[in-house]
Amino acid sequence: MKIRVYYEDTDLGGIVYHANYIKYCERARSEVFFAQGMSPTLGEGSGFVVRTIDANFVATATLGDILEVKTVLLTLKNSSILLLQEIWKEETKVFSMKITLVYLHAKKPSRIPQVFKEIFTSF
Amino acid sequence: MKIRVYYEDTDLGGIVYHANYIKYCERARSEVFFAQGMSPTLGEGSGFVVRTIDANFVATATLGDILEVKTVLLTLKNSSILLLQEIWKEETKVFSMKITLVYLHAKKPSRIPQVFKEIFTSF
Amino acid sequence: MKIRVYYEDTDLGGIVYHANYIKYCERARSEVFFAQGMSPTLGEGSGFVVRTIDANFVATATLGDILEVKTVLLTLKNSSILLLQEIWKEETKVFSMKITLVYLHAKKPSRIPQVFKEIFTSF
Amino acid sequence: MKIRVYYEDTDLGGIVYHANYIKYCERARSEVFFAQGMSPTLGEGSGFVVRTIDANFVATATLGDILEVKTVLLTLKNSSILLLQEIWKEETKVFSMKITLVYLHAKKPSRIPQVFKEIFTSF
Repeated sequence: MKIRVYYEDTDLGGIVYHANYIKYCERARSEVFFAQGMSPTLGEGSGFVVRTIDANFVATATLGDILEVKTVLLTLKNSSILLLQEIWKEETKVFSMKITLVYLHAKKPSRIPQVFKEIFTSF
Repeated sequence: MKIRVYYEDTDLGGIVYHANYIKYCERARSEVFFAQGMSPTLGEGSGFVVRTIDANFVATATLGDILEVKTVLLTLKNSSILLLQEIWKEETKVFSMKITLVYLHAKKPSRIPQVFKEIFTSF
Repeated sequence: MKIRVYYEDTDLGGIVYHANYIKYCERARSEVFFAQGMSPTLGEGSGFVVRTIDANFVATATLGDILEVKTVLLTLKNSSILLLQEIWKEETKVFSMKITLVYLHAKKPSRIPQVFKEIFTSF
Repeated sequence: MKIRVYYEDTDLGGIVYHANYIKYCERARSEVFFAQGMSPTLGEGSGFVVRTIDANFVATATLGDILEVKTVLLTLKNSSILLLQEIWKEETKVFSMKITLVYLHAKKPSRIPQVFKEIFTSF
């Protein structure tokens, strides 16, 4: 998953606004579903929500950079997953985070559908 | 409607990213509804969508500026409205646009509910 | 220039938030420069700023859609350009706008550098 | 620091997009400086950058909600600070994070200027 940095991603410090790295990681998670012709949600009220993020901002990126998001599955539980996501600019690690996602159905934590589990184990 | 410019609103040119002025205007339109204890939508599939925008970027704003959005009703039709929205930084006009909004119900242009018409005529 | 619609691009209406189409067009303009190994700015205080936008929101896009931005040069003047940019979802036109950009140097409208003119005439 | 949730803040799940809570916290940090007639940066190349974020997404917020950001200083070191920031919707905690900011001068971690230290100890 490659991501180009555009004007909208930068701030007047001349670098990518910090919260945008977290957006890039979400794009990468969704792209895995899209690439398989699926959506990350199964309709109204079902889907993954973010529960925790533990992030390190290691280096900076700026306009025109091409970043790569790498995603690794750390833990797969009944109703939640723990991922490690890193953003690299060529050989430099720019950002990393551990993120816990919980699967909700009817607003309650629920068993992750098998079809989604298979996608995560393919990470 | 006063709006503070934060880091997220700027880009590496040191000024507010152009599309954000259009966001500020949307905040001002919504705030009129919120201020009356209402929502700009009456539930699933009903609400206003933007049809046209004719915008002039006159001056610039930057981090920490306090901007004011002024909204004037130009035309009120059965299923659409035309507004003039301006953004000012003290005595300087920064941005202006004419915007046409169409009211949709069941995805089709529909008569604007009376309760909404009254809000617009109060602009 | 293909653009995927992610969660961050949508709003609770279930479709792409209107101002984001204008961001997509900026990405497409910048990408032309990046593709040639250039930046759309020549350093501090020089670069293109948006002067006017005249936009039509024709159809809607949603999560997972792949959009294509098409850019055509309409007018090239000494210090400004007029572009037509359209966003398509397969055979459906979703959005179009005419946008005027002015080239600033030392904060004043200035002659567009030849190297940039050549990029625009390649559109 | 009160923040209204607008359309731009939500996604098609109907709630605030997760990364936006982190933006809200940045607004609150900047607002402390603005409220004292200061800027969070002392010019080119100086300023605070985010080093770590440890965030919990506890509940959700949606269109029209008014959120309050509360900020507490946990640790003040020579060149970095650790803050606790929480976002509340009336009596409900929606979000909390611990954030480490490092002060950079000439791109290197540097002693936080006294004037800034005083602002943080006022939190």
